[in-house]
Parts: sequence; C-alpha cells; structure tokens
Amino acid sequence: MSRDSEFANAADSLGYSFDGEIKIGGNYVPLVRDGSHVYISGQIPRVQDTIVVTGRAGSEVSLAMAQLAAKICVMRALALLQRSLGSLEKVKAILRITVYVQSAENFTQQSEVADGASELLHSILGPAGSHTRTSVGVFQLPKNATVEVDLVASVD
Amino acid sequence: MSRDSEFANAADSLGYSFDGEIKIGGNYVPLVRDGSHVYISGQIPRVQDTIVVTGRAGSEVSLAMAQLAAKICVMRALALLQRSLGSLEKVKAILRITVYVQSAENFTQQSEVADGASELLHSILGPAGSHTRTSVGVFQLPKNATVEVDLVASVD
Amino acid sequence: MSRDSEFANAADSLGYSFDGEIKIGGNYVPLVRDGSHVYISGQIPRVQDTIVVTGRAGSEVSLAMAQLAAKICVMRALALLQRSLGSLEKVKAILRITVYVQSAENFTQQSEVADGASELLHSILGPAGSHTRTSVGVFQLPKNATVEVDLVASVD
Repeated sequence: MSRDSEFANAADSLGYSFDGEIKIGGNYVPLVRDGSHVYISGQIPRVQDTIVVTGRAGSEVSLAMAQLAAKICVMRALALLQRSLGSLEKVKAILRITVYVQSAENFTQQSEVADGASELLHSILGPAGSHTRTSVGVFQLPKNATVEVDLVASVD
Repeated sequence: MSRDSEFANAADSLGYSFDGEIKIGGNYVPLVRDGSHVYISGQIPRVQDTIVVTGRAGSEVSLAMAQLAAKICVMRALALLQRSLGSLEKVKAILRITVYVQSAENFTQQSEVADGASELLHSILGPAGSHTRTSVGVFQLPKNATVEVDLVASVD
Repeated sequence: MSRDSEFANAADSLGYSFDGEIKIGGNYVPLVRDGSHVYISGQIPRVQDTIVVTGRAGSEVSLAMAQLAAKICVMRALALLQRSLGSLEKVKAILRITVYVQSAENFTQQSEVADGASELLHSILGPAGSHTRTSVGVFQLPKNATVEVDLVASVD
C-alpha cells in the first residue's frame, strides 16, 4: 500500500480528519524547505479548532491518551509534508523528532509516550520512518497541550 | 531600509545596546558555521552582565515582559549573525527557532511569548525572517532567565 | 594521543565501560546519518541496564553528580559515533548539543551542568569538539534520568 494510503488509513483509524487547514498559533510558518531538508514547526494535538488532548501526562492524562496525542502531532506533521511534497513517497528519511510531554512531577514515561509517534512514523513511512528521537518532560505547553512534536525530514 | 539599519533601530527602540561582547556562560561557542548553515547557541535575555528578565512567566513575569525577553534573545542571536557574516543581508532564511519559556504551572501562552521573537525576525529580516518554530514551557532556565531561544539559519 | 585513546581514557577515568550495546528505550534508532551529518538520539546516563544518575538536580542530585550525568550522556553519544564511523578521528565538528536537566524549582545552574558535557567534548575531540549549546531545565526525563543530551555532528 502507498504511504499516502497508509496515512489515510491511519487518520480513519484515529477517527480524525487532517484534510482541513493545519492551523498554527502564531506569527511563523508550519514548514520551511531548505534544499533537501524540511523543518516542521512544533505540532500540538489540534484537530480543526480543538486541542484533542490537554493536561498533564501521569496525573490528568493517561499514558494511552498521551500516546494518542503524540500520534495526532505526527499526523499533522505528515499532513504538512504531504501537502508540501505532493506525496509522502517523497520522504527519504526522518532525521530527528523531538517529543515534549507535559508531565506530572513523577511521570517518567516520556519515552513510552514518544513511542506513539515513532510507531506511527514506521507504520506509514516504512523504513524511511526510522528516526532519531529526543523525548523530555516539560512543565507546560501551548494551550495546555499534553504533547508537542517537531521534526526534520530529508526529502527528494 | 537595510536589515542592519532595521536591527539598529530595533535595538534603539528596545533601549538596549548589543554592541559589546555577546557573553555566554560556559565552555562552548556562540555560533558554529557549517557550510551554508549557522547554528546559534541558546540565548538568554542578557545585556552586558545583566539578565534583563528573570523569573517565571505567568506568575512573577507578565506576558509583555516575557515577550520582551524573547526579543532580547533574538537581538543577541542577530547580533552574533551580523558579526559573523558582516551583515544581516547575508541571511537567506531562518530554518528553526526553539523558544523555551520558564513557565508557571498553569501558564499556557508559550506561543504568544514566542510571537515576540517571531515578529522581530520578520520586522528586521523581512521575508527571510520566516521560520519554523517550537515553543515549550520549561521548569527552569540558566540564571533564572525567563526565556531562552536558539536558532539555525541558512546563509550566503 | 588519538581521539579514540582519549575516549578510552575518559571511560577509564569515569569508571564506566561503554563497550557493550548502547541500549535505547523505544521504537527508534540511536543514530541517523544524512550525508555528512549525523544525528544522535537523546542520551540519558545509562550504563548497561542502569541509569547511573537519577533525580532532580538541585535537590536530590548535586551539581557535581549532574555534571557526571552529562558526561556519561556524551560518552554514549561518542561511543555511537565511534562505532558508526570506525573512529572518532572522522568527526569534523559538533554542530549542536542540547542539554536537558531535570531541575529543582529554583535550580538555575543548567549551564554549569552542561559544562560537564562541553569539557568532555573538548578534551576528547580537541578543536573539533567546539559546539553550540542549549541547556534548559525540564520537569522530568525518561526513567527519572537527571540529564539528557542530544547532538548533531558533521563528519568525514
């Protein structure tokens, strides 16, 4: 199956549409292309006008919900790549993702939250979805989002 | 007006001089050039020997003061680019800025703080000031700074 | 002395071996090479199966122990580079390190913690160890690690 079909299936499976405008919250751009590299701005789990998962992982938000948040962040990043490139088939590699998790004081499963993002990248992009990763627990995120993810991709 | 004049005007308007040494706090360098890319170390709102804005945004520090802090961080980054390149006219694009905001527990306006940085980049660099951005709320920053900003630029 | 000998000496001096598998905690890869750049995933101070330094810098963990944690993170990153490249002699430059420090509420010495990482890079890599740096205080880290470090290197 093509990566774009995998992406559509993942959106169906999550129960969210990423067809509309990918809104961002400030005076910057969602994506910058620099030669064969694409930088994607930090994505929070917003669908249309709603932040789907808010609050602190480990107290208000379960691990499973935080993983869902990470997946929605990645879907937004992939939607941006797909629109910019025409197709996800043009992604050669994901060089880095950074996963910021709004964490409770003693919540130490940031890596497990980030696995939600990593698994989705692999399932949609195949071997090109391999990536380096940094996951950390932050104190707050814009709009009380539970997770924020940014990434750098290498593209054709 | 040239970007270097815009920079000088912005410094005047903020009421700070960025002519002196741009001090950094440890055993590293403020800037590394790698081909057509320049990496700038994380900048805190220091002018000469003073951290101009310290404390937690959302409790000790207002949104407006945090935005000022973000602007000073960006002015330092631009001062470093200007000295290294001879002129800000040689900046082709800002690929990424990451804005770390020392946040109160329930402060969720990291994106609005980062707008201070973004607006200044646009006003000084024009279209070349467009950038991707990640803004997060951290628990502390070096020297109790309210904001820290790093960036990667593409240059001639 | 060669950089690889310096690395071996540093490991001896720290009292830890980095010869075994460099374990990582999730569904991603420790290193991605992209042309002449290598991205290294966020490293915590793990040796074999043990996280050597855990807890909050500034309350549970002293500055000296946090600096040790930063050094172990860097040793892991260098071990990954050494295995991938065959020798640390092939490192041309360290472009960026980001140092995340699990911090107590009023701990503001993230830069001093990061100096542990920076000094080790210089002592092992010489001038090629110069780097830009961002250090921030986060609320938690995977597995309660005290420090996490990621980096981007330019290589032959």
